[in-house]
Amino acid sequence: MSDFDPPLHAIREVVARALAEDLGVLGDITSIAVIPESVGGHGVFAARTEGTLAGTAAATEVFRQVDPTVTIEWNVEDGTEIREAQQLGRVEGPLRSLLVGERTALNILSHCSGVATLTRRFVRSARGKARVRDTRKTLPGLRAFEKAAVRAGGGFNHRDSLSDAVLIKDNHLVHLELEQAVERARARWPGRIIEVECDTLSQVGRAKAARADLVLLDNMTPDQVREAVHLLGGAVKSEVSGGVSLATVAALAEAGADFISIGALTHSAPALDLALDIQ
Amino acid sequence: MSDFDPPLHAIREVVARALAEDLGVLGDITSIAVIPESVGGHGVFAARTEGTLAGTAAATEVFRQVDPTVTIEWNVEDGTEIREAQQLGRVEGPLRSLLVGERTALNILSHCSGVATLTRRFVRSARGKARVRDTRKTLPGLRAFEKAAVRAGGGFNHRDSLSDAVLIKDNHLVHLELEQAVERARARWPGRIIEVECDTLSQVGRAKAARADLVLLDNMTPDQVREAVHLLGGAVKSEVSGGVSLATVAALAEAGADFISIGALTHSAPALDLALDIQ
Amino acid sequence: MSDFDPPLHAIREVVARALAEDLGVLGDITSIAVIPESVGGHGVFAARTEGTLAGTAAATEVFRQVDPTVTIEWNVEDGTEIREAQQLGRVEGPLRSLLVGERTALNILSHCSGVATLTRRFVRSARGKARVRDTRKTLPGLRAFEKAAVRAGGGFNHRDSLSDAVLIKDNHLVHLELEQAVERARARWPGRIIEVECDTLSQVGRAKAARADLVLLDNMTPDQVREAVHLLGGAVKSEVSGGVSLATVAALAEAGADFISIGALTHSAPALDLALDIQ
Amino acid sequence: MSDFDPPLHAIREVVARALAEDLGVLGDITSIAVIPESVGGHGVFAARTEGTLAGTAAATEVFRQVDPTVTIEWNVEDGTEIREAQQLGRVEGPLRSLLVGERTALNILSHCSGVATLTRRFVRSARGKARVRDTRKTLPGLRAFEKAAVRAGGGFNHRDSLSDAVLIKDNHLVHLELEQAVERARARWPGRIIEVECDTLSQVGRAKAARADLVLLDNMTPDQVREAVHLLGGAVKSEVSGGVSLATVAALAEAGADFISIGALTHSAPALDLALDIQ
Amino acid sequence: MSDFDPPLHAIREVVARALAEDLGVLGDITSIAVIPESVGGHGVFAARTEGTLAGTAAATEVFRQVDPTVTIEWNVEDGTEIREAQQLGRVEGPLRSLLVGERTALNILSHCSGVATLTRRFVRSARGKARVRDTRKTLPGLRAFEKAAVRAGGGFNHRDSLSDAVLIKDNHLVHLELEQAVERARARWPGRIIEVECDTLSQVGRAKAARADLVLLDNMTPDQVREAVHLLGGAVKSEVSGGVSLATVAALAEAGADFISIGALTHSAPALDLALDIQ
Amino acid sequence: MSDFDPPLHAIREVVARALAEDLGVLGDITSIAVIPESVGGHGVFAARTEGTLAGTAAATEVFRQVDPTVTIEWNVEDGTEIREAQQLGRVEGPLRSLLVGERTALNILSHCSGVATLTRRFVRSARGKARVRDTRKTLPGLRAFEKAAVRAGGGFNHRDSLSDAVLIKDNHLVHLELEQAVERARARWPGRIIEVECDTLSQVGRAKAARADLVLLDNMTPDQVREAVHLLGGAVKSEVSGGVSLATVAALAEAGADFISIGALTHSAPALDLALDIQ
Repeated sequence: MSDFDPPLHAIREVVARALAEDLGVLGDITSIAVIPESVGGHGVFAARTEGTLAGTAAATEVFRQVDPTVTIEWNVEDGTEIREAQQLGRVEGPLRSLLVGERTALNILSHCSGVATLTRRFVRSARGKARVRDTRKTLPGLRAFEKAAVRAGGGFNHRDSLSDAVLIKDNHLVHLELEQAVERARARWPGRIIEVECDTLSQVGRAKAARADLVLLDNMTPDQVREAVHLLGGAVKSEVSGGVSLATVAALAEAGADFISIGALTHSAPALDLALDIQ
Repeated sequence: MSDFDPPLHAIREVVARALAEDLGVLGDITSIAVIPESVGGHGVFAARTEGTLAGTAAATEVFRQVDPTVTIEWNVEDGTEIREAQQLGRVEGPLRSLLVGERTALNILSHCSGVATLTRRFVRSARGKARVRDTRKTLPGLRAFEKAAVRAGGGFNHRDSLSDAVLIKDNHLVHLELEQAVERARARWPGRIIEVECDTLSQVGRAKAARADLVLLDNMTPDQVREAVHLLGGAVKSEVSGGVSLATVAALAEAGADFISIGALTHSAPALDLALDIQ
Repeated sequence: MSDFDPPLHAIREVVARALAEDLGVLGDITSIAVIPESVGGHGVFAARTEGTLAGTAAATEVFRQVDPTVTIEWNVEDGTEIREAQQLGRVEGPLRSLLVGERTALNILSHCSGVATLTRRFVRSARGKARVRDTRKTLPGLRAFEKAAVRAGGGFNHRDSLSDAVLIKDNHLVHLELEQAVERARARWPGRIIEVECDTLSQVGRAKAARADLVLLDNMTPDQVREAVHLLGGAVKSEVSGGVSLATVAALAEAGADFISIGALTHSAPALDLALDIQ
Repeated sequence: MSDFDPPLHAIREVVARALAEDLGVLGDITSIAVIPESVGGHGVFAARTEGTLAGTAAATEVFRQVDPTVTIEWNVEDGTEIREAQQLGRVEGPLRSLLVGERTALNILSHCSGVATLTRRFVRSARGKARVRDTRKTLPGLRAFEKAAVRAGGGFNHRDSLSDAVLIKDNHLVHLELEQAVERARARWPGRIIEVECDTLSQVGRAKAARADLVLLDNMTPDQVREAVHLLGGAVKSEVSGGVSLATVAALAEAGADFISIGALTHSAPALDLALDIQ
Repeated sequence: MSDFDPPLHAIREVVARALAEDLGVLGDITSIAVIPESVGGHGVFAARTEGTLAGTAAATEVFRQVDPTVTIEWNVEDGTEIREAQQLGRVEGPLRSLLVGERTALNILSHCSGVATLTRRFVRSARGKARVRDTRKTLPGLRAFEKAAVRAGGGFNHRDSLSDAVLIKDNHLVHLELEQAVERARARWPGRIIEVECDTLSQVGRAKAARADLVLLDNMTPDQVREAVHLLGGAVKSEVSGGVSLATVAALAEAGADFISIGALTHSAPALDLALDIQ
Repeated sequence: MSDFDPPLHAIREVVARALAEDLGVLGDITSIAVIPESVGGHGVFAARTEGTLAGTAAATEVFRQVDPTVTIEWNVEDGTEIREAQQLGRVEGPLRSLLVGERTALNILSHCSGVATLTRRFVRSARGKARVRDTRKTLPGLRAFEKAAVRAGGGFNHRDSLSDAVLIKDNHLVHLELEQAVERARARWPGRIIEVECDTLSQVGRAKAARADLVLLDNMTPDQVREAVHLLGGAVKSEVSGGVSLATVAALAEAGADFISIGALTHSAPALDLALDIQ
C-alpha cells in the first residue's frame, strides 16, 4: 500500500468491472485464434510523453486477475515525474494473457496518470502559495482512483463524499440565514469541519462571525480573494473555487488563500499517452 | 430507450455505484442538518457553454434512485446541440432529494456531454468525408455510457469489447505471418469482421490479398492514407487510427479512408460545463 | 407470490443478469436502428407444442426491468398443462422494449417450462405410487428457478442445498461405519432429516437399525427396491435414486418406495418450444 | 486460457454463485458432522458414457474457491472426445473440501460437456458441408459457458448479444420495408455485420439486392435452401435456422448454406454423465 | 429522507441481502403451503417494551421489496421514545407477503431500535455535560444503519471510516514521536480533523502543543479527565474513550470533556423487543 | 474448514463488505500519513475477558484480503473457552496492513465470540437437559456467521431460512384449522420437518394427533412445559421458545423439552472484549 494507492477494495472492484466489460461473452477472440496458448512474451510500459505516473497498483491488479502466472515489476512509483520514452515497468508471462490485460491496464494507467499530470501542472503554477485540492466532480465509480491520482500529482483531497464534511452553499440558504445554517450544522455534526460558500465579502464576514472552519470563495477575482483573506485574518481558513484554470491559478494562489479547489483535475484531465510495447 | 441511451442495466449499475460513492456512510450531512425534510424545490439544468447534450437517461435515473417522488422533464434530447445558458430540463421534488442527486447527475451529464461535444467537433472537421469512430480506450466501467455519447455526437461505435470483432495487430504477429493470422481468425470466427492493423503499404497489400474485411492504417500521413485507399480499391474498407487530433482530422478524412478512429473521444474529452440551478 | 414462484430475490437477480448478458455494451443495435422510438406494439406468448407452463413470474420481471411502461397479462398460471398453439399471455408496450425483452423472457420461460414438462411426464409415469423429487443436480445459478419449475410439474423438492439435510453417502464412509456416521450426524444436527444412501439390502438393514429418517436406495432394480421397502417396514421412508428414466420409473414406483429422485428433471430437460408472436 | 475457455470473469462469477447456492447458510452439514477435518483424499473424474469434454477450467476454479490447498490435474482438455470409463482428471486435498466442491464441479462439467457433445453430433451430421452455430437461446447467466462449450464441440459462435451484430427479423419489418431496414442499419452501424431473416425466396432476392452480409433462411426445406443459395450466388452468405434437428441437419447442410444455427445446442442439451470417484 | 435515515443505497443493499438470506432457495415454504395466495391481512408493529424507535425506513423497504402492493404507515418516527404496547405502525397487503417480510423487518427494526435505546440511556446519563458519540466498532455491513440509529438515540457520529479523519494512536507511534506524527498528518491531510489518543497528561500536553484538533483521553478516570480538560484550556477539544459504561458515564461527563465515545452503543446493544401483530 | 466455520462464500463476502465500509474512498489516511510503507510489525490477539472464541476464519480472511503477505497463526480454535489475557493468535506483516485490518478483524471476532460466549452460558445453565438452539432472529447479512458462532458455543442451529423447514404459527391459522395446515404442509413438502407452534395444551394435543414432527411450546411456564412433554409422550419432539433468559432457562430445561430456542443468542449478545496488541 503506497501513499498514492486507492483502497484495495476499490482497486479490485474497478479492475474486475473493467475486465468484464472488455472481455465480453467470448473473451479475446483475436488472441484465441492467433496466439498459440503456449507462447510467452514480455512487455515494457513506456511513456510516449512526459508527465506524472499514477495507477500502477491497479495495473498490477489487472494482470493478477487475468493470469496469476504473469509477473510485473515497476521501475518507478506513482507520483514520479516521467519523461518521454522512459521505461516504466515490465510485465512477463503467457502472450495471450499480456494481450488480454493490455488495454484495460493502459486505460487505467493513462487516466490516473492524466489526472496526476494535470494536478502537477496546477501545483507548479500555484508555486506553493496555496494547496491545490480536488472536488467531488469525479467520474462515476472512479472517485477513489482519481483522488489517489490527485495526491500522486502533489495535490490534496477535499471531501470524499457528502458524508465527509459540511459544505453550506447557496442552495442550502433558501429557507434560512447563513448563521442559522452554520449553527444547525454544528449542532448536528459537532467535531466535523464546517465550510461555507461565500460569493461576497459581506458573506465572508458573516461566515467568520459564525465561526465556520473554512470559507469557500466562489468565483472571486484575485483582488476579491486578497480582501477576503485579509478579512478572515488567519482565524478561518479560505478556499478558492469556481472555474480555476491554468491561466488563472497563479494569480489566485498569490492572493493568499489556503486552498484552491479545481474540478478540472478529475473531470477534464486528458489521458497521459502511455503504451505497452510487447516483444 | 432513445437511440443514444446506454443499455438499461448499465444505467442502473453505474448510477447506483456513483450514488453509493457520493453518499458514503452517513449520507448528505449538510442537507440533513440544514434543509427541513418537508421543504420542496425545483431546479433547472442549464448549459454554461455550448456543446452537445448526452447522458439525460442516466441523470433521470439518478433522481429516480434518490427519491421516486422527484419528477424530471427534459426540454432537449441527447444528441441536441445546445447553446450557452439554454435551459435543458427541470427537476422538482423535496429539496433534500434534489441536493442529494445534484452532483452525481451533473458528473454523469457533464462527462457524457463532454464526449458528445468532442465527438461532434471531430465529426464536423471530417466534413462527411470519413466516419468518426471511438475505440476501446474508454474509462473503466463507463464504456457503455461513453459509446452512447459518441453516437449522440454523431460518431460511430467501433468494437464494444475484445469479444466483438477480430483486430490483428503487430503484437499478434510475433510468431506467425499476417496471412496465417487472417486465415486462422477466419477459420475460428467465421462470420465476424476481421480487421488488420497495417503500418506500411506493403502490409496493406498483403492484408487485401488475405481478404481482410477492414484495414487499420496506423499512424499514417494523409498521403500514405491516400495511397493505401487507392491500393485497396474499394474491395476492402479502411480505417485511419493513431494520434488523430482536431488539427489533423480534416486532412486525414480528405484522404479517403472510410473510418477515422480516435481514442481521445473517450479518454480525453473535457467535461461540458453544465449546472443545476436550484430555486 | 404463487405456489410455483421462485423467491423474489432470485427472480430479480437472475433476470438482471440475463438482461445484462443479452444487451451487452451497446444494447439492441437492431431495434435502435430499425424501430422508431415511438412505435408501440403487442405480443402474444404462444405454445408451439404441448407441455406444462412455468416461469411466468420471471418473464413478467424481464419486461418490468426492461421498461416499466410495458404491461403483461397471463391467461394461464404456472403449473397449467398447455396445448399446442394456445395463447398463454399478452405483452404490450413500446415495440423496442418488447423486442429487447423477447429473447430473455423466452429463454427463461422455455427452460422452466421444459423442466416442468419433463417432471410432469415422470409424475404421470409414476402414477401416484411414489413422489417424484428433484436433486441438487441443477444448473449453476438456476436452482431456485428449476426447483420451482419441478413443483409446477407436480414434483417435490429434495434438499435445497448442502445446508438443508444430512445425506450420508459412500464417500462419507471411508473412515467410519454407517452407524457411527448416523450417530455423529444426529449429535451435531439434531432436528434435521438424516438420509443414508444404501447400495445393498444389508446396508438398508443397518440404516434402519441406526434409525435414519430416510434411506436412499441407490441404483437398485425394482425387485431390490421392493425387498428394501419390505425390510424397512414403514418405519423408515425410502427414496429410489440413480439413473431413473421414463422407461424405468413406472416399475420403480410400483415397487413401493416413497420417493423417486431424478437428476434429469433439472440437468437434462429440453426447452419447451414457446414463442412470442409480435403484432 | 485455452481456446475453449469462457472469459475469466465469467468463470469466477458463475462458480462463486453456484457455490453460494449449494452451500447455503450452514455449509456442508453432512461433511462437517461425519468427516474429520484432518482427513485427506483424492478423487478421479470419470466418464460414465462417451462424449466431448468441456468445462474443465470452471471445475478447476470450483476447487480453487473451495480450498486453495486442493490440487487438480486434467488428463484431457476441453474439446477432447472421451470414452466411457475414461479417467479425465484427478483432484486431491482435504476430503471435506473435495466433497464440498464435488456437486458444483460436476454440475458445471456435465452441462458444458453435454453442450459440447450435442454440438459434436450435429457437426458430425453436417459432414463439413456447413458450419454449425449456436444462437442467443442460452440459459440465463450461462451464455459464456455455453458458447465456449459449443466451440469445444466443433461448433461456431453466432452473436454474443444484441449488441454484437444486426439481425433484422419479421418483427422489425412491421413499419418499414426490408430495404429500408437494411439501409438504416447500415447507416447507424457501419462496419458491423447485417443479417436479414428471410422466409421466402422473394425476400432472399431482396436481401441480396439490399446487400445484406448474411441471409438467415428461416424454416426452409433443403430444396428451398438450395434454391436460395443458388440465388445468392456466393455474393452473400447464408445461414439455415429454425427447428433444425439431428434428423434434418444432414440434408440441410447438403443443400449448401454456409451456416446452420441451432438453438437446441444450448437450450436442450442433456447433461453428459460424469462422476467424481472419491477414494 | 429523515434526519435519522441511513443513505438510500445502504437501505436497499442491506434489505436485499437480508431478504435473500431469509428466503433461501425455495422461499417461505410454510406460507406457500398454508396461506391461500388471495388472502389479505394487516399487521400492527407494536412495542413489547419501552425504548427509542429506529429503522423504520429500512422496514418500509423490506415490504417494498417483498411486494409493491403492500402499504405501510408509521404512527411514529425514528428517534421517538415509545412506550410498552404502543402501536408504531401498520402494514397491509397479501397475507403471504406480510409473513415473508415480517422477520426481516423486525430483525432490522429491533437492532436499530436497540442501538437507539442504548444510546439514549447513555445520553440521559451524560445529562448534557458531554456529547455521546459512536465509534468504528460496528457490526460488519451495518455501519450506516447503526450510525443512523445512534443519531436517532440522541448521540453523535464519530468517524465514518478510516478515510474520514486522522486518529493517531499508540500503534502509530512506534517509529516516530507524537509531534512528528501530527505534523506529517497535517502535511498530508490539511483541512481534516487530527485527533490524538493520549494515555497520560504528559501526552495531552504534547498533543496540545502540537496543535491537534482533538485529544482522545484513553481509559482515564474522571479526575484525570478533569485535569486533562483543564490542561487543554478550551483550545483543543477532548474526547473520553475506553470502556465507558452506564455506571461510569455520568462521572466522566461531569469531568468536562466535549465528547464521550462508546463502542458498546453499536457492538453490544441488545435488541429492542418489537413485534408485528398480524390480524 | 472447521466445524464452526461459516461457508466460505459468506466469509469472503462479509469480509469484503466490512473492509470496503471501513476503508472508504481514501483508505486509512492516518497510516498513510504516519507509518512508513516499509515498516513491519506483529500483533497479538488477546482476550481482555474470559469467554468462548469464534470467528477466527473470518479474521484470517480480513488480513488475506488486506495484504496477502501478512501471516496469521492461531493458538486456539473456534469453540475454545479462553481466559482473560490469553494470547489467542499472532499476525505479522507490514505495519500499515496490520492497522488497516485491525478494527474489521476485531469487530468480527468480538461479535462472533460474543454470540458463542452467550450461547455457552445458556448451554451451561441448561445442564444438558435440553439442547439450546438459535432462531431466525439474526442481524441482517450476518446469519451464517452467527449460526456458526452458536455452534462454537455448544448450541445447535434451528432453521437456516424460511426455505428450510415448515413452522406453522398463529399467523398461519387465521383461515384454517391447525390440522388442515399440517396436512397441507405435509402434502406440499413431504420429507421436510413440520413444526407447530402451540400456546395451549389443547393445541399440543391436536398437533400430536396431526402427527407434527416437532411442537414449539410458546411462552409456557416450566409446569406447562412439563405437562406438554408428558402429553407428547416421546412420540413428538418439543421445543421451548419465547423470552427465555438466563434466569429461566434452567427451570425450563429441567421441564423436559428437547430443545430451547433463544433469539437473544444472536440478537442481543454483547461483544466479547478482544484486542490486537501491536508491537
